[in-house]
Amino acid sequence: MKIAMIGLGKMGGNMTRKLLEKGHEMVVFDLNQELRERYEELGAHGARDIEDFIEKCNNHGAEVVWSMLPDNITFDTLTKVAKGLEGNRVIVDGGNSYYKDTVILADEVKEYDHELVDAGTSGGIWGLEKGYCFMVGGSHRAYKIVEPILRDLGAEDGYAHMGPVGSGHYVKMVHNGIEYALMQAYGEGFELLKNKEEFDLDLERISKVWQSGSVIDSWLLELCEKMFARDGELSDIRGYVEDSGEGRWTVLEGIEQRAAAPLITLSLLQRFRSRREETFTDKVIAGLRNEFGGHGFKKRGE
Amino acid sequence: MKIAMIGLGKMGGNMTRKLLEKGHEMVVFDLNQELRERYEELGAHGARDIEDFIEKCNNHGAEVVWSMLPDNITFDTLTKVAKGLEGNRVIVDGGNSYYKDTVILADEVKEYDHELVDAGTSGGIWGLEKGYCFMVGGSHRAYKIVEPILRDLGAEDGYAHMGPVGSGHYVKMVHNGIEYALMQAYGEGFELLKNKEEFDLDLERISKVWQSGSVIDSWLLELCEKMFARDGELSDIRGYVEDSGEGRWTVLEGIEQRAAAPLITLSLLQRFRSRREETFTDKVIAGLRNEFGGHGFKKRGE
Repeated sequence: MKIAMIGLGKMGGNMTRKLLEKGHEMVVFDLNQELRERYEELGAHGARDIEDFIEKCNNHGAEVVWSMLPDNITFDTLTKVAKGLEGNRVIVDGGNSYYKDTVILADEVKEYDHELVDAGTSGGIWGLEKGYCFMVGGSHRAYKIVEPILRDLGAEDGYAHMGPVGSGHYVKMVHNGIEYALMQAYGEGFELLKNKEEFDLDLERISKVWQSGSVIDSWLLELCEKMFARDGELSDIRGYVEDSGEGRWTVLEGIEQRAAAPLITLSLLQRFRSRREETFTDKVIAGLRNEFGGHGFKKRGE
Repeated sequence: MKIAMIGLGKMGGNMTRKLLEKGHEMVVFDLNQELRERYEELGAHGARDIEDFIEKCNNHGAEVVWSMLPDNITFDTLTKVAKGLEGNRVIVDGGNSYYKDTVILADEVKEYDHELVDAGTSGGIWGLEKGYCFMVGGSHRAYKIVEPILRDLGAEDGYAHMGPVGSGHYVKMVHNGIEYALMQAYGEGFELLKNKEEFDLDLERISKVWQSGSVIDSWLLELCEKMFARDGELSDIRGYVEDSGEGRWTVLEGIEQRAAAPLITLSLLQRFRSRREETFTDKVIAGLRNEFGGHGFKKRGE
């Protein structure tokens, strides 16, 4: 199949490699020239810039243009691609876009006679080895066109049609919201184990035994075991946690639905807290305890 | 091996069945006569009452007495058993006891020259099929004595020595705390999917695809798929969630450690909330909005 890939970062790059191995003809583009050259060496047709990418897509007759761009440049880039593409093509947004943007982008893409498919993608850097999990939104016709790619990149049973365009990114967004809360849950549990010094517990052994017959067995727990096997103290890791958007969107969705999602919300807020050494809130509280009760407070530097 | 089992409910009963199948000689007791007779028919020596149980343990030379009693009667019953048992035996508490009680019980048991082992047990009603997961506390000597039983009942790699007596129940307690938060996380995610009517999402299909290559793959997700396959609406299930103690102990532990565990705590509080139709808190808030802002409130019956 003739496929074009735009965005050759960790995910897009690994996908390109796998699709080339499967014998697909690939047009590729990334602003980073080094990445482009890496996949040219593996047999892809590399493009110099976005105009060249569109031209090569047209010349090589790419049936599907797959995008793995960061969400902040996805909308504008894919609009430009849709405008330049000839004929009737399928454009896949495999990145982590906000589903509301996806629905609007789908209308833009339609203006130029193409169809948008949104493929929420999970699996991270393990996707190359295990195969990815794709949550796919779009028309049945467009889904059928991209299905051979999903089959080649996905884990066994690792792709499914969710519903109309936007629903793939919606399901992926909620997936990531759940992921935040699962990670925080394991984190809190391991902290309670770690703190219990009198029992001198072995976190690697515990994450291993919990994978055999226990109710909390999961893939994240496998990763915990690997991590604790390297260093049960996690000495090199700072307790500073980034987030990349999907958690925030999930929280907003809960508010819009008047359904909230308290754990998912709190797990996002805990990430924010992790990035601050102290909060103004805590300064106010420490100060007020002194104001009304004469309770001492720690001075800066104490 | 000669083993005695006290408490023949779902877990203890299934364990007895499996141990009989494996060729062990079993003394069994439960206050429920019907349960007792069920395992007598399978070849166990049933006891009439606790005194008879102790006598049969002594006569048959049971090396290990395994208890699967509810936590509210475990302490007193096992103290009585320890007092009556002759020689030097190992008593296993496989129930969900509070680890602080376990440490005290271990001292009681030692007074009568026996040893206590605490075996935190996960796997629920699936344990018979999949094998259980055992988190075991106690001396190395006592652990070695019960190991053949753990091997016969456990999943592959499904048992491990955690540390001194009490540590098995401690790890199981934290396990259940994590379990509460994981369940709430999936619950909230599926609610956000369910509420999104315009996408008409299929929760069975979603829980299935998330099991293939996604970051949130877990055993609980397999159970979600089975549950949604029967009824995607969960029409017969009331949103009323019980708890059975371990979550509360985990929250207390967080407070004692001054480490809290916000998600685990909130998942317990959400269970409490699920059991009330309305709260007095909400009546106060609705009333106050009216007091200061003239905002209307719904009257009883509206």
